[in-house]
Amino acid sequence: MQTINIALDVMGSDHGPGEVITGAVRAARAYGIHVSLVGKAEIIQAELAKHDTAGLHFAIVPAAEVIEMSEKPAAAVRAKPDSSMVVACRMVRNGEAQAFVTAGNTGAALAAGILQIGRIKGILRPALLTHFPTSNGACVVLDVGANADVRAEHLQQFAIMGSIYARHVLAVPKPRVCLLSNGEEAGKGNQLVLAAYPLLENTPGINFQGNTESKDVVAGLVDVVVTDGFSGNVFIKTAEATASMLQKIIYEELTAGPVSTVGALLAKPALRRVRHRLDDSQYGAALLGLSGLVVKAHGRARAEGIQSAIRFAKQGLEHNILDEIRSGIHLVEAAAETESAALKVTVSA
Amino acid sequence: MQTINIALDVMGSDHGPGEVITGAVRAARAYGIHVSLVGKAEIIQAELAKHDTAGLHFAIVPAAEVIEMSEKPAAAVRAKPDSSMVVACRMVRNGEAQAFVTAGNTGAALAAGILQIGRIKGILRPALLTHFPTSNGACVVLDVGANADVRAEHLQQFAIMGSIYARHVLAVPKPRVCLLSNGEEAGKGNQLVLAAYPLLENTPGINFQGNTESKDVVAGLVDVVVTDGFSGNVFIKTAEATASMLQKIIYEELTAGPVSTVGALLAKPALRRVRHRLDDSQYGAALLGLSGLVVKAHGRARAEGIQSAIRFAKQGLEHNILDEIRSGIHLVEAAAETESAALKVTVSA
Repeated sequence: MQTINIALDVMGSDHGPGEVITGAVRAARAYGIHVSLVGKAEIIQAELAKHDTAGLHFAIVPAAEVIEMSEKPAAAVRAKPDSSMVVACRMVRNGEAQAFVTAGNTGAALAAGILQIGRIKGILRPALLTHFPTSNGACVVLDVGANADVRAEHLQQFAIMGSIYARHVLAVPKPRVCLLSNGEEAGKGNQLVLAAYPLLENTPGINFQGNTESKDVVAGLVDVVVTDGFSGNVFIKTAEATASMLQKIIYEELTAGPVSTVGALLAKPALRRVRHRLDDSQYGAALLGLSGLVVKAHGRARAEGIQSAIRFAKQGLEHNILDEIRSGIHLVEAAAETESAALKVTVSA
Repeated sequence: MQTINIALDVMGSDHGPGEVITGAVRAARAYGIHVSLVGKAEIIQAELAKHDTAGLHFAIVPAAEVIEMSEKPAAAVRAKPDSSMVVACRMVRNGEAQAFVTAGNTGAALAAGILQIGRIKGILRPALLTHFPTSNGACVVLDVGANADVRAEHLQQFAIMGSIYARHVLAVPKPRVCLLSNGEEAGKGNQLVLAAYPLLENTPGINFQGNTESKDVVAGLVDVVVTDGFSGNVFIKTAEATASMLQKIIYEELTAGPVSTVGALLAKPALRRVRHRLDDSQYGAALLGLSGLVVKAHGRARAEGIQSAIRFAKQGLEHNILDEIRSGIHLVEAAAETESAALKVTVSA
């Protein structure tokens, strides 16, 4: 395999280019990859000069514009052809980089990916997949925000892509795929879930286990949680917000009296480990279904989160996830064609 | 005001009739209300005999059938006219009780309420409202499960009912009403949220503050969270599941080494207070929009949860919440009529 080159959007993080470049330096050293730093050249040069980069491979790729968090995604991508996101995606399209990594505006990353890199043939909608911490490890959830409104056949493709991802990247041999619903029983759900259920039951190559609820997801009983981008977004953001609030409440209660304050001091390293187990800024999100790999780091990601997102991209490339998705979608399309051909034979017979 | 009589479904709790009756006895004593215990008479008599009920008012109302958790709601309500749920709802319809309280099958409680008690005139869909703990108190969320699929005009009515509830029961003078969405900015959301947004902006009598995300809800920045029953259900169940998991993880980490174990022992009372602040079995859910008050206790509610649900019903009755909803819906209907009359004048002029 050729050395991996990542096109990294230096301009997208809430914490500024410094954190992004620190993350890039750490990733280059840890994983032996090349990184193209895309953004304002003078800023990149100044930040890069603060690090020891001996033996590492960086290219500075100038991009004069920046897409801001508040901009309308598709309009911004069209209006700013020289933005760091668009330039980085163009590198992936031209084969100058194998993956695009950004901590910027999610919608814009999606729009830039679709417009510049394009979808895999047969994929109706790309989906944002994220790792989600459970009590015994992690599962993947998709879509968590690329598509607020979807149809059942979109969920079917999400199930296929998520399953392939879990098999290859998480190394789960037969990933348990479930639909997120308002009850575990078959027959529970909104119209979308009700329509998707039989479709997933009849999808070859996935291990569909029916509906699931949040408590089973956090308990680690599911490997791939399939949902629309609206509910998926509510799901991950609620888990994140609840975990933060609970840590705050625990701190308040622990420091409310002298005895428990001593307890809190002694328990500090344990609470730090808890925070680390749950820290979602470590988890990147992959935009699956495009002909090139796009990884979204958390907007609040610091150097560690950027490094994580780059590792995430590297894993996807090493496991050849895009070709696996191509084959998976092709398999399902072929099965559907065979079935419809058989149906025609039956009808004409 | 006449003495309140609650029709209590004794048969619905996961923990059996004993817990329900203990909760009823405590509520009767604490709030000076009457309770009609609806269910299998011999079981009720046996359980009631275990308590000192001197000075309390209970009626035993026999109902031979029980609607189970796994039954299809509407079919079960139709097939079991002598079930505890249907008998209790009939008491409310006939004015023999002012509210129906159950810890049983939520869908069946809704179906029994709609079929036996009926909707308030003008209400399109009743909604399930629940109290939700925040870092500085509580807000209300509706719908959390009565309607998996809704239209924008349903969300408008949920906003009106939730606002009235928060004003009267939570005593918030100008409750901040928000739509749960996948981003705070106007323009974020799925098709449903996008359609509901301008409708809520133009609804008289509510203090609409736009879209909200989970982090602002848990931070206590919203009083009334308006959402469809599918997303609302995912929202409250994810918060509940995350809080449970986090408590489990914290316990694991705290007991992982000898120093933090000592810390954990000292911190125990604080952690117990945390659990209490978050214990959702204390929170009942009201089914708003029916001509009678229906309160759903958590299926896992023990005596304390049943007592809470009865207190919840009592508060709703004391604040005359049903009449307030009638006026609120009438106000909006009248405003819409005036507007449409004005439009006709303009068109014909």
